[in-house]
Amino acid sequence: MSARFEFELIATSGGARRGRLRLAHGDVETPAFMPVGTRAAIKGVTLADVEALGADITLANTYHLHLRPGDDLIARAGGLHRFMSWPRPILTDSGGYQVFSLAERRKLSEDGVTFQSHLDGRALVLSPESAVDIQWRLGADVAMMFDECPSWPAAHDAAEAAMARTVRWAQRGRDRFLALSEGRVTDLPASNPGQAQFGIIQGSTFKDLRDRSVAGTVAVGFEAYAIGGLSVGEPTEDMYAVTAHTAAQLPADRPRYLMGAGMPDDLVESVARGIDLFDCVLPTRNARNGQLFTRTGPIAIKNARYAEDPLPPDPDCGCPTCRRYSRAYLRHLFMAGEMTAATLNTLHNLYFYLDTMRGIRKAIEFGTFDSFRKTFLETYSRRPSA
Amino acid sequence: MSARFEFELIATSGGARRGRLRLAHGDVETPAFMPVGTRAAIKGVTLADVEALGADITLANTYHLHLRPGDDLIARAGGLHRFMSWPRPILTDSGGYQVFSLAERRKLSEDGVTFQSHLDGRALVLSPESAVDIQWRLGADVAMMFDECPSWPAAHDAAEAAMARTVRWAQRGRDRFLALSEGRVTDLPASNPGQAQFGIIQGSTFKDLRDRSVAGTVAVGFEAYAIGGLSVGEPTEDMYAVTAHTAAQLPADRPRYLMGAGMPDDLVESVARGIDLFDCVLPTRNARNGQLFTRTGPIAIKNARYAEDPLPPDPDCGCPTCRRYSRAYLRHLFMAGEMTAATLNTLHNLYFYLDTMRGIRKAIEFGTFDSFRKTFLETYSRRPSA
Repeated sequence: MSARFEFELIATSGGARRGRLRLAHGDVETPAFMPVGTRAAIKGVTLADVEALGADITLANTYHLHLRPGDDLIARAGGLHRFMSWPRPILTDSGGYQVFSLAERRKLSEDGVTFQSHLDGRALVLSPESAVDIQWRLGADVAMMFDECPSWPAAHDAAEAAMARTVRWAQRGRDRFLALSEGRVTDLPASNPGQAQFGIIQGSTFKDLRDRSVAGTVAVGFEAYAIGGLSVGEPTEDMYAVTAHTAAQLPADRPRYLMGAGMPDDLVESVARGIDLFDCVLPTRNARNGQLFTRTGPIAIKNARYAEDPLPPDPDCGCPTCRRYSRAYLRHLFMAGEMTAATLNTLHNLYFYLDTMRGIRKAIEFGTFDSFRKTFLETYSRRPSA
Repeated sequence: MSARFEFELIATSGGARRGRLRLAHGDVETPAFMPVGTRAAIKGVTLADVEALGADITLANTYHLHLRPGDDLIARAGGLHRFMSWPRPILTDSGGYQVFSLAERRKLSEDGVTFQSHLDGRALVLSPESAVDIQWRLGADVAMMFDECPSWPAAHDAAEAAMARTVRWAQRGRDRFLALSEGRVTDLPASNPGQAQFGIIQGSTFKDLRDRSVAGTVAVGFEAYAIGGLSVGEPTEDMYAVTAHTAAQLPADRPRYLMGAGMPDDLVESVARGIDLFDCVLPTRNARNGQLFTRTGPIAIKNARYAEDPLPPDPDCGCPTCRRYSRAYLRHLFMAGEMTAATLNTLHNLYFYLDTMRGIRKAIEFGTFDSFRKTFLETYSRRPSA
């Protein structure tokens, strides 16, 4: 285990776990939600805002930063923390998901993936080793291994091949990571010598493939493990079932990260299934589209019913937006196309996600997670009220 | 004079005046810069941000708010202060400038202006009286009279006709305002009974017309007076000359507002000529275009020279952007099209303008405005360094 990685299990409540993750740049209280800062910025808000909202950790995207401004430039700036002026932990994904969803003229081989930049058409390569190198230059506290991400639905054959290749890539990526973190590579200066690396479990919605992926990836050995390939369009019940099935097999003394999930109720349900870490673009992306999360469900602020509504978006919310602004004002900003609408909506939605995690953590500490979960799901409706 | 309007002259230094303007929602330390919140929002930042930056007063636009969300709606919400959650003073312009620069199929008569909304083509009318009524519903602390704004350059004939009409409109607007503020109109509830009204001096760059405009407008009698029709494309020396000429004739016991100016050096030079109030979109608009004001002049953050520059935009600046972020990061955000670029640049530029005004006020108090002005102009170059 990396010198700067510790995971302490503080309490459990059923399958839910309350933990503390020690990373090079500080502690992360788990279960935790990581706001997504794709290009070293969280859209619509400043990192000072995100710090004030109480995020322990943010996520950035290897693919996007490799393209622009470049991991070399960020390394010369002293690493991603200094470049973006974010003093707390950062997790970078490996770029795998973006290569499979964004890049053009993609060619996949055992070596890795060649593709064209979606920005300027440049030919680029990502491999298990180069994804490690890029993240080493970025200097995140947690680097993710490079995986193959099949789309959903996938045939069993295709999902099996992708899973098996991902396990082989896991070994290559881990070898490279250990060579770097143990100082056996001298031509690549460390932006963050305390970096940890997480493995990724694949296998689509097939339990037999998930089993083999867990066995192979845990055999390689990482500081912790993520469940990839979910929240990609499969039915919610499949996501929950695969999450439960996979999480149960992962080492109990390591945090478990469900990549890309989800809706607020997904967070609660996945914590119940043993998940400790989340990231998702929903709070930020939906904010820009005028959707605000509340305790009773999402609302569409553009709805005419809010035109003269003096209430804050969520009367029970303590966020900077709800403490000051009315639905009527937020609707006006959204309808007028003012970018401040995106800012105020994003502040609210991020606070809502982070506050939901605070509620979850407290409930687990007090041994009342079951009733928290029951109340949350009874109160929260995924169907927008507008 | 309105019950809630006082102007105290605290100190002078040459032509420069240090004052305090008492308005219904608080004091404005002058000389003051008013950030422009066209549609009840200051583009790119939140009003909490603007309050934290130390703005005593903001400006909103009658034309835009009349179109959307409507002054009726804002009146029902309790007025503009409550609608936008800004507790400090607000000044609304009369819509005159926007009608003459934005609206379509404009028809001008002695009665007023008929035009089509630039948003949806609706036929609308603005007159000296209706501009008062709209601002009465909005409930700003300072309402501006409705004026005719000729474009520049204007022939003497055309400028004279517009100026003469503006003086006639001044009387009509003042009559309507007094009827409202003295409670002689019962069908228009007051959003802000302590509203004051400023007259506007026109006359383009013709000193004889400015003289007649001052005489006519001061004869009508307003709480204070603004100089309109400048900063519309005329040479800087003309703007300074007309400002000096006009300001000198305005009552010394009332604040003088130079509408729409200007560049940072324009603020300093206009204060020297007796101006107390400013508004301008430059700090916010230029921020969105990647131009950052610094003590030595504006910089274009997209310039390649900043790609790896670890310094803040202005090393001598104490704004939230300069205290945390580097030019390299701000350039990355701008090049990537992140909206956070607009936010961080706007915070900086507004702080720069507000801080320049703080410096001006301190210098006048200490009787050192002449040396402040000299140093500022020696240090500041209007030519972008990039």
